Amino acid sequence: MTLVPHHDGSSLHVSDLAPALGDVVAVRLRVPAGYGPLAAVRTRSNPDHEPEWTDAEPLGSADGWVWWEAAVTVRNPRHGYRWMLQHQDGRVEWLNQTGLHRIETLDSEDFALVATPAPPAWMDESVLYQVFPDRFARSAKADTYPTPAWAIPAQWTDPVDPVMPARSQQFYGGDLDGVIEKLDHLASLGVNLLYLTPVFPAESNHRYDAGSFERIDPLLGGDEAYMRLIEAAHGRGIRVIGDLTSNHSGDSHEWFRAALGHPGAPEEEFYYFTDDANREYVSWLGYASLPKFDWSSEELRRRFVSAEDSVVAKWLKPPYNADGWRIDVANMTGRLGDIDLNAEVRQLLRRTMHAINPETILLGESTNDAVSDLQGDGWHGAMTYPSFTRPLWGWLSEPTGKPYLDATGVELTEPWFFGQPIGGIPRYTASQFAESVTRFSAGIPWRVRLGNMQPLDSHDTARFATNAAPGVIPVAVGLSLTMPGLPVVFAGDEFGLTGIDGEDSRTPMPWGTEGEPDVAERIALYRELIALRRAHPALQSGGFRWLHVDDETVVFVRESPFETVLVLASKGDADAALPTGALAGAAAAEAVFGDALLGVADDGSVLLSADGPAFAVWILPGVAAPAPLTSAGTDEVSRGVVDASEPSPADIVKSA
Amino acid sequence: MTLVPHHDGSSLHVSDLAPALGDVVAVRLRVPAGYGPLAAVRTRSNPDHEPEWTDAEPLGSADGWVWWEAAVTVRNPRHGYRWMLQHQDGRVEWLNQTGLHRIETLDSEDFALVATPAPPAWMDESVLYQVFPDRFARSAKADTYPTPAWAIPAQWTDPVDPVMPARSQQFYGGDLDGVIEKLDHLASLGVNLLYLTPVFPAESNHRYDAGSFERIDPLLGGDEAYMRLIEAAHGRGIRVIGDLTSNHSGDSHEWFRAALGHPGAPEEEFYYFTDDANREYVSWLGYASLPKFDWSSEELRRRFVSAEDSVVAKWLKPPYNADGWRIDVANMTGRLGDIDLNAEVRQLLRRTMHAINPETILLGESTNDAVSDLQGDGWHGAMTYPSFTRPLWGWLSEPTGKPYLDATGVELTEPWFFGQPIGGIPRYTASQFAESVTRFSAGIPWRVRLGNMQPLDSHDTARFATNAAPGVIPVAVGLSLTMPGLPVVFAGDEFGLTGIDGEDSRTPMPWGTEGEPDVAERIALYRELIALRRAHPALQSGGFRWLHVDDETVVFVRESPFETVLVLASKGDADAALPTGALAGAAAAEAVFGDALLGVADDGSVLLSADGPAFAVWILPGVAAPAPLTSAGTDEVSRGVVDASEPSPADIVKSA
Repeated sequence: MTLVPHHDGSSLHVSDLAPALGDVVAVRLRVPAGYGPLAAVRTRSNPDHEPEWTDAEPLGSADGWVWWEAAVTVRNPRHGYRWMLQHQDGRVEWLNQTGLHRIETLDSEDFALVATPAPPAWMDESVLYQVFPDRFARSAKADTYPTPAWAIPAQWTDPVDPVMPARSQQFYGGDLDGVIEKLDHLASLGVNLLYLTPVFPAESNHRYDAGSFERIDPLLGGDEAYMRLIEAAHGRGIRVIGDLTSNHSGDSHEWFRAALGHPGAPEEEFYYFTDDANREYVSWLGYASLPKFDWSSEELRRRFVSAEDSVVAKWLKPPYNADGWRIDVANMTGRLGDIDLNAEVRQLLRRTMHAINPETILLGESTNDAVSDLQGDGWHGAMTYPSFTRPLWGWLSEPTGKPYLDATGVELTEPWFFGQPIGGIPRYTASQFAESVTRFSAGIPWRVRLGNMQPLDSHDTARFATNAAPGVIPVAVGLSLTMPGLPVVFAGDEFGLTGIDGEDSRTPMPWGTEGEPDVAERIALYRELIALRRAHPALQSGGFRWLHVDDETVVFVRESPFETVLVLASKGDADAALPTGALAGAAAAEAVFGDALLGVADDGSVLLSADGPAFAVWILPGVAAPAPLTSAGTDEVSRGVVDASEPSPADIVKSA
Repeated sequence: MTLVPHHDGSSLHVSDLAPALGDVVAVRLRVPAGYGPLAAVRTRSNPDHEPEWTDAEPLGSADGWVWWEAAVTVRNPRHGYRWMLQHQDGRVEWLNQTGLHRIETLDSEDFALVATPAPPAWMDESVLYQVFPDRFARSAKADTYPTPAWAIPAQWTDPVDPVMPARSQQFYGGDLDGVIEKLDHLASLGVNLLYLTPVFPAESNHRYDAGSFERIDPLLGGDEAYMRLIEAAHGRGIRVIGDLTSNHSGDSHEWFRAALGHPGAPEEEFYYFTDDANREYVSWLGYASLPKFDWSSEELRRRFVSAEDSVVAKWLKPPYNADGWRIDVANMTGRLGDIDLNAEVRQLLRRTMHAINPETILLGESTNDAVSDLQGDGWHGAMTYPSFTRPLWGWLSEPTGKPYLDATGVELTEPWFFGQPIGGIPRYTASQFAESVTRFSAGIPWRVRLGNMQPLDSHDTARFATNAAPGVIPVAVGLSLTMPGLPVVFAGDEFGLTGIDGEDSRTPMPWGTEGEPDVAERIALYRELIALRRAHPALQSGGFRWLHVDDETVVFVRESPFETVLVLASKGDADAALPTGALAGAAAAEAVFGDALLGVADDGSVLLSADGPAFAVWILPGVAAPAPLTSAGTDEVSRGVVDASEPSPADIVKSA
């Protein structure tokens, strides 16, 4: 790689990450010394889909970079902009979120400012821990709860049975008091955000088929246990978010029961009934137990979201005080055929939550390309896989050669790969990993990118460790905690659990094995890397810049005015010569994780090497800028306001 | 280039280009013989933003290609899909509108079927001729019309004065009867679609500041002349579309006059007044003469679009019978700050026009990246520059070294380049031209791409010829008539006119010079290339495939079952070895334009060469497929309809 001009959405380069419409934001471009010479640097915005240009001024140099600054007035809720570099020799270059281009670039890949209210600051500081309640921990109280009729009881040490009907009915009976009892484990790991998959009453072990949104499943301990859990978690500095199905309810849901077979019921309009008798209806992918919501219903919007005592409101307010929601199947919510109410629903959700408590977060499940829905108008981030998780698997996995059992008990020779029928896990190089991260992040404003969940796996996927190439676990965990995004630990990963698909990976937590050497080592790895993330704000919200990418290795920095965090991740042996000038202050680098060598030559060039697999982190001085970065005030919101009483010099008729 | 699998939206590969929701469309992939071996080929659609896969079956081989076919059910109005190729060696490839990929691809670059009503078939068969009425032709009647107070009268042979106020007020007095008198010229060129920039009364020579939409400017001959013109054009097989400003009116408009300074007037809500006295208002980019419409007004929607006698309706209905609209500033229409009603307006426009006469077309001006607005829900195509015109200039232009005068009379050393302050015309290679075409077309469904206007220039730009490199005019004109899109001739280009910016290029037509050798040669070039386009349906709607791209040369084919049109375009000398197997039937190639050599070696490989600049066209046999392509019927529109009375085998609760 050669050293190229750089900009990203972080506070090194943008004066205001939470602007309002009309605010003038200062944005900065860093150009390597000796790059050019440049005749001009400009920004091109595209308010109301019509270009607007501003000139950048040179600010001076620092640490081998020449800095330029321009003012951008935020005119749309998502305000895209790019940089234009005009060389004195006539060459023109464009810089956007995919990198540097010699030809014009797409609006969709512009940098972007977001003028909707920002997520709470604590989002960036969070490390999320995901719990699937039936399998996490079982308190003594759980023995007093009746086993429901649908359940197939299992002992905690029974293997998970991934074949229907056990797939959804095998019932281990984990409960919320069990979670409370294990909060010390979370605290000792260092996580500070707990995400519980659904806790509403249902007729399955996963509870995504909610029978009600009005109460917590008594099998989990009911409303009181939920309240106790959140209070106890808050007491340890751990926030808690719930999981809500906005795409569908269960067919046992009170609303659906009121409407099924009852034409004229008020809840009829909550669902898509397709016959006069309210017997046929649209469901999630044909699963009759999951009737799909019709968000054209104002009454559904009221009861679900906007009423004082709505579903969304109830659990965020006292006495529960949950800290936000993860929305299930957010990608399909409100979408059916020629209907698309998704933007309305996500915006209504967020507006409502913001009014109740602006210190809440809203994450949407969107397991594939989430770009179109992640423009900052609703979801703070997504549970999504193509921008990190899948490329990471592609790079760091290897088939085990052992057979896999699918949900019907059939032996498969290829590992599960996110439900994609592509013959197993694809084989990516480190370069392709990096290219994928860029491709699926470039369409997302920086602020929203920081909210995208960055798990190795989840309750819906196989476990990463199942197919991990030898020695790469520290690489994978390390990347999830150092790249821009919300780090996620799926409960059990820290115990080294495996699982061949989403069901199989819902293994009951193997409490009591913490002292076994392999487990202890794995837990220690998580503790150390989580502590690193939490100790270094640059890892939470610092800028991001690739320094080196080859088939085996990626090297990047997270940058702030206060510190630079240098990260090397390699599957094979690493031998990376960084571009000259890429890294100021390398001589002062302090190794804080991993086993790799950083050498600085007399000319200042930096060489990184390690035996692979390797994950290594160094702390360096922060990025020096020639002047402090401040915002530039407020402009009128819309271009083009004129006063007929005072004909303006601009009053020439349209020429284009 | 190596030969790779191919698919595009044309009828070679798609069974139904105008499907309805629920229709099952057969789609085909061609894979070069010897490519693979493949374990599986599948399509991945994304209905309601959730993946759906179908398996492709091999159909057999023809002419060196193995064909695969899959069924895709159209579930959304824009139904995206991509191809997945799984190799027997485990490699996975994805094919989308940007090409072949080893890593996952973006939804936004999928192939796409469009389920809204299709544009009329005549759109693809059209070659458009753009007329700027004040400068096109002046009938004897025009001498009888009074000169308006705002006008600065000019003689037909006066030079255009690009400096304000003449820029918008210099008045040559071309009229619609003048156009009628010149229809023979249009017919002899072979164009069959006439686009007139605005003909409503206004206070400028360009008339984009409409004073009314209810009548044709008397200075042009009034309503009667418009009726006569359309009737006469139709008589010669030439359709006519008008130009409508949906973003703004003029400040002399009767609606604006009724509202300005009159709080409470019914038309107040048509505009964005920003003070209580209705004196301050939002205008187009600060030009007080162009007050911006507020499309949240239902009454504006009614009067402008949806009423029986609306503006949009009036001129499409008898006795006028215009054939469609080009919408000015379509990109900004309905957009202001946090308001975005653009989709509503364009959909309302098209629904209304379709109801009045489905044989009308709707084009939207969107001079930059038009992708987000061109998904098939409104505009049939766009007047847009980054997908063809600007990259063509970048490749085929050269600075003249002569100074240019800007609108204020200041000398510039750099040529105008679409208003972009980037130091003049950028320097593209042929490869960068091709890359730009792909980049800005990949996000647009094939059917809409065919409606995108493909001009060398327009009334808003400098003339291409002004900075054309020596000898490239046939290359540029040839590409505009052979690439996928709607070819456009801006009146005067066929006379070799030049102009240094949008105003300067509005030169009065130099009637009478047709016999001068240079002019005669240029007109003959246009005639020949237009005739080629119109004689070959493959150039109108055939598939599109790059065969060779290097710094100097591009080679591509337009393909149908009935013919293949091979095109070579080169700025310098061309020497292109096509990938083996790229072109079946090369031995039967018939040269129909240009001066280039096509050689076929014993092994079937094809070599093209020419002295540059060169533009050459050959006709070859059509593409043979192993079986006819037919659609597969209709499916239910939405996935997931179930019947509670009859529990289905799929009634297992959600597992993901």
